[in-house]
Amino acid sequence: REQQDEDEENFHIDFKRATVEFFRRLFTEFIGTMILTTVLGANLLESRLKLITSESAAFNNGLTILFLIYPLGAISGAHFNPVVTFTFTLRRVFPWQWIPFYFLSQFVGSIVGGLLIRGLFGGQYAALATSSVSLLTSSLANAFKWEIFLTFCLVFVILQTATKASVIGSQAAIAVGAALAVESLIGGSKSTASMNPFRTLGPSIINNSNDNRHSLWVYIVGPLLGSILAYLAVSGIQGFGTKTNEITS
Amino acid sequence: REQQDEDEENFHIDFKRATVEFFRRLFTEFIGTMILTTVLGANLLESRLKLITSESAAFNNGLTILFLIYPLGAISGAHFNPVVTFTFTLRRVFPWQWIPFYFLSQFVGSIVGGLLIRGLFGGQYAALATSSVSLLTSSLANAFKWEIFLTFCLVFVILQTATKASVIGSQAAIAVGAALAVESLIGGSKSTASMNPFRTLGPSIINNSNDNRHSLWVYIVGPLLGSILAYLAVSGIQGFGTKTNEITS
Amino acid sequence: REQQDEDEENFHIDFKRATVEFFRRLFTEFIGTMILTTVLGANLLESRLKLITSESAAFNNGLTILFLIYPLGAISGAHFNPVVTFTFTLRRVFPWQWIPFYFLSQFVGSIVGGLLIRGLFGGQYAALATSSVSLLTSSLANAFKWEIFLTFCLVFVILQTATKASVIGSQAAIAVGAALAVESLIGGSKSTASMNPFRTLGPSIINNSNDNRHSLWVYIVGPLLGSILAYLAVSGIQGFGTKTNEITS
Amino acid sequence: REQQDEDEENFHIDFKRATVEFFRRLFTEFIGTMILTTVLGANLLESRLKLITSESAAFNNGLTILFLIYPLGAISGAHFNPVVTFTFTLRRVFPWQWIPFYFLSQFVGSIVGGLLIRGLFGGQYAALATSSVSLLTSSLANAFKWEIFLTFCLVFVILQTATKASVIGSQAAIAVGAALAVESLIGGSKSTASMNPFRTLGPSIINNSNDNRHSLWVYIVGPLLGSILAYLAVSGIQGFGTKTNEITS
Repeated sequence: REQQDEDEENFHIDFKRATVEFFRRLFTEFIGTMILTTVLGANLLESRLKLITSESAAFNNGLTILFLIYPLGAISGAHFNPVVTFTFTLRRVFPWQWIPFYFLSQFVGSIVGGLLIRGLFGGQYAALATSSVSLLTSSLANAFKWEIFLTFCLVFVILQTATKASVIGSQAAIAVGAALAVESLIGGSKSTASMNPFRTLGPSIINNSNDNRHSLWVYIVGPLLGSILAYLAVSGIQGFGTKTNEITS
Repeated sequence: REQQDEDEENFHIDFKRATVEFFRRLFTEFIGTMILTTVLGANLLESRLKLITSESAAFNNGLTILFLIYPLGAISGAHFNPVVTFTFTLRRVFPWQWIPFYFLSQFVGSIVGGLLIRGLFGGQYAALATSSVSLLTSSLANAFKWEIFLTFCLVFVILQTATKASVIGSQAAIAVGAALAVESLIGGSKSTASMNPFRTLGPSIINNSNDNRHSLWVYIVGPLLGSILAYLAVSGIQGFGTKTNEITS
Repeated sequence: REQQDEDEENFHIDFKRATVEFFRRLFTEFIGTMILTTVLGANLLESRLKLITSESAAFNNGLTILFLIYPLGAISGAHFNPVVTFTFTLRRVFPWQWIPFYFLSQFVGSIVGGLLIRGLFGGQYAALATSSVSLLTSSLANAFKWEIFLTFCLVFVILQTATKASVIGSQAAIAVGAALAVESLIGGSKSTASMNPFRTLGPSIINNSNDNRHSLWVYIVGPLLGSILAYLAVSGIQGFGTKTNEITS
Repeated sequence: REQQDEDEENFHIDFKRATVEFFRRLFTEFIGTMILTTVLGANLLESRLKLITSESAAFNNGLTILFLIYPLGAISGAHFNPVVTFTFTLRRVFPWQWIPFYFLSQFVGSIVGGLLIRGLFGGQYAALATSSVSLLTSSLANAFKWEIFLTFCLVFVILQTATKASVIGSQAAIAVGAALAVESLIGGSKSTASMNPFRTLGPSIINNSNDNRHSLWVYIVGPLLGSILAYLAVSGIQGFGTKTNEITS
């Protein structure tokens, strides 16, 4: 009887509740990517203007993902990055049918993040919040290598500490925060350590970049390749076998 | 029988015990806001005097709320900030009848914090511990925008990680600490990142500020608007529905 | 039968096992205070020689107590500081009969810490690892006020997060680490933020100090008064009532 | 019946599954040591080139081991350092028959780490990622003393927080990360704080060092002696008695 009641209840609320839950996931990815893009962009911009040191900006990056994973990980999985969604799908823990919705939410979040940067810093500075390769301390080829390596480390830690497709709980929050801080610091002078295509694409569309989007491809192709390498390393540890397709609630 | 005994016991100690518990809550809000105001004021003052870097002051702000949430979150909820109490009430997890008592405890805490700052640094420096807008690196309008944005992020994290109306436990402590550190760093040159009306009001009453309270309104209206936006974003994720009015013990 | 066997077993091993357990507590207090004195002394010395920044030394202090609480808190309670042992006794969670043994272990630890500092840095620098008041940035009276305030904050956090008389577990480790870092930073230019009589006394006996122990009294009386204030504040929150005299294992 | 089925199942999959599990352990030690060697080498190199401050490099070292322990501790134990494997064996919690396999995996990891450093920074800078004694701020004898002391502290914390032979879970991750950060900071100007023979040996084979491997012995003998002292201190606390030889899964 109880089971039957429960089934009936599930039947009645199925469509409406599932839709609400799914909308909350997407809204969460939107809000998270918006805050991430804005704050990490502010860190980059202010360190380029020497308002803050590049070291504190790097640690700040790690703390930012930390303070976003705790409140939002349990709702959407706290991806905020298309290559994270992509590698979870490769690992067969995230349904590929959801990819367009997640990508769109993240992309819109990064666009609104670009607008917030413009609103907070003004149009004359906003381009400095977009990742670009400084030819004084690096080169396009070098930055490309670095984005691959940095994203490899970051996504490796994400995949190894995630619960199914969710970056959730203390362990993941602290490990991923630490990894983002470390990668931001050592990669700062090489490629500004984006490791997230939308985080760079969104602001570059709204505010341009200080090299006129010349190095934009580095921040799209590099993270993609790095995340595939991370997928291979994690599969070497955990096996390539089929995972269940269930989503954590 | 046991149930009856328990009921009887509850009946006998109800008024006295509840009063003691409530007094402990208020005393805890007082102590917490006093330490928060003093230490965050000391950070601001010392970074303005270049005794410490502004970066270390920002991280220190985060560590301060962290070391206050752990010991005190379970007692009063560790608000220490009227806009936090206010948004918990909007979310219907905090009884509106308690607001005047919490506000008073926090306000008195910030006043005593102002006195401690004067005692520790002397009257000639104490005004530097009060937030004010530096017209060299920002403007009133700009600082106002920043206080809204920074408080939005901070209160968003608080509401999303709190247990009912209490900022309690590792997850909330670390997330809120990280958020306060990050907001303090990126907002430092814009508005000194107060995000807390009483934290600025109390010391400004006792010690004035280095702009003669000219920008005081920014630190009262800005956090209020930011916290309302955070309330809206959190309600978008969790729903606007009625919450139980119960208080965590 | 089982109960009887267990009782008998307890009877047989009582003296020997209890002695071994107690010796391990004392050895742990010795090792912990030795490492704490050496590392915090190294931080102070290196920041005075500008080998490291005073900000990184302050954060390092917090990380040091953190990495000592985790491995040792469950054995001895991780006091490493006579005013911590003293206030636990005031709160009636630590047996006063144990005080001389704990104090002796901590004192010998601080003496060996002073010897390690001498061995690692050489006799010509070792005095710089001892706390003393810089008359350029502070005064004896000012430093005295600061030691009281800083120790108040630190011991307040310790008493509120401890489990009976033990600083144990994540919550206490992180909160106490954060508090020590914050106090070290804001008190650095005022009193060098010792907050621990033996930490200053031990090295001053072995290596002297750069003001010929002129300000030594500040680092003994200040922490004592601050810890009594913390005891009063915590008793205001938790009540002054009798606590059980049991020790956590 | 169930028990029998289970036994039979164990019998059937014994060799294959145990081999796969063991290979995953070794692969994990390889990946972890590779990332550790590369990132800690990058920190050292970039701080020597003044691209980052030596303080941020030190904290970064701590964050790096932190983000490696969380994802990998449960698989291989997260040693990544031959003296850690060695002291676990002395404590009789790690089977001595596994030592050659662990050492080989770690050594190959450090060699590949040396190659990655060369690839990311180029051959002209890569030697700067290898630990060596600066005769301007230290001496071989002094660096030797420091490597002993620093490794003593680090391995003491590792042995005291590990679960059998595994550095696993929040407590160990945070404590070991904090210890590595602290040791890196105070030992930076004395010996560059390697505390790990392979971390220095691998890159020195691939990229040489800036003193032509003159001080290489310091980084092999020092950590070995320091870890033996840590073994003695831990045995003083926990006893020298026989431990079970079981491995955590």
